[in-house]
Amino acid sequence: MPARARRRDRPDVAVLRVGHRPGRDPRLTTHLALAARALGASRLFLHPPDPDLAERIGAVSRRWGGTFDVIGVPAWKPVVEQFRGGVVHLTMYGEPLARAVPRLRKAARLLVVVGGAKVPPALFGVSDHNVAVGSQPHSEVAALAVLLDRLLGDLPPSRFRGAEQRIVPQRRGKRVLPVRRKGRQ
Amino acid sequence: MPARARRRDRPDVAVLRVGHRPGRDPRLTTHLALAARALGASRLFLHPPDPDLAERIGAVSRRWGGTFDVIGVPAWKPVVEQFRGGVVHLTMYGEPLARAVPRLRKAARLLVVVGGAKVPPALFGVSDHNVAVGSQPHSEVAALAVLLDRLLGDLPPSRFRGAEQRIVPQRRGKRVLPVRRKGRQ
Repeated sequence: MPARARRRDRPDVAVLRVGHRPGRDPRLTTHLALAARALGASRLFLHPPDPDLAERIGAVSRRWGGTFDVIGVPAWKPVVEQFRGGVVHLTMYGEPLARAVPRLRKAARLLVVVGGAKVPPALFGVSDHNVAVGSQPHSEVAALAVLLDRLLGDLPPSRFRGAEQRIVPQRRGKRVLPVRRKGRQ
Repeated sequence: MPARARRRDRPDVAVLRVGHRPGRDPRLTTHLALAARALGASRLFLHPPDPDLAERIGAVSRRWGGTFDVIGVPAWKPVVEQFRGGVVHLTMYGEPLARAVPRLRKAARLLVVVGGAKVPPALFGVSDHNVAVGSQPHSEVAALAVLLDRLLGDLPPSRFRGAEQRIVPQRRGKRVLPVRRKGRQ
């Protein structure tokens, strides 16, 4: 059984956030990390590192399951250069998502690079794919979410193993149940 | 010809952001507004009003086209009560998106309600649909983006008429062209 409960016909997707500003962007990068986790990415490389943020996301994973990790990186270039798989740069100037997706789905592993306010121009050159989620200015959180949804689709609940609690979907109101684990009382 | 270049087989979608905090959330709500615009919503009702944010989004529309509007509302309940169409509350506790989408697509008009950190419990009761984009904690920006993408799909460039400039999608680099308008030099 694979360590991660991803679908075998879909790539394993890691995300690299370049140019996070720990003082200014905590909420925005938190949203980016949570969206990456909820929509099926396996990890987030965070440049520069932000231990507080990593710890907050770790707490979410302990409670809600899964193996999503935030890994602080002091330099982004080595992550891109050493990645064994396709590198996807999300940019409003890139080729349309719909055209890129069939190609991206064939990859075993993808690294999705997401810039902040200022994107190093070098990113265009080192990426295998420059992909636009609509050729309009919007949000890297939104763009990442749409890309992951189109690549990975709906995730099975087993993707989030080891949770302390889980939601039972409801048309009205909230239903949250504790998860009993084997070997525990 | 319709005033908005939306696809006729898709609903017109308005978004209501409840509980925006002008001092604390400017960037997050800006991302929400830009994602709503880029992914095909027709307008954003913003509670409480934030004229600075509305002006910033207006500037984007003047430059990049389309008729997307930010409308400040001092109270959110009348917007929901007076809306003529289906009211969709995005919540991690709701029914799965995949199950709701076929029903939502049949609507002529939808109001998607997006809460912030604290969601008024009354929202569950007054909504026609409580919909979850995955039953995991994540981001209202990401959830809105995935919902709009699944409902409206890829938008034709004509959705953003009246732009001063437009992007020509590229596999490498950036290409932005000025848009010539009829009747102008």
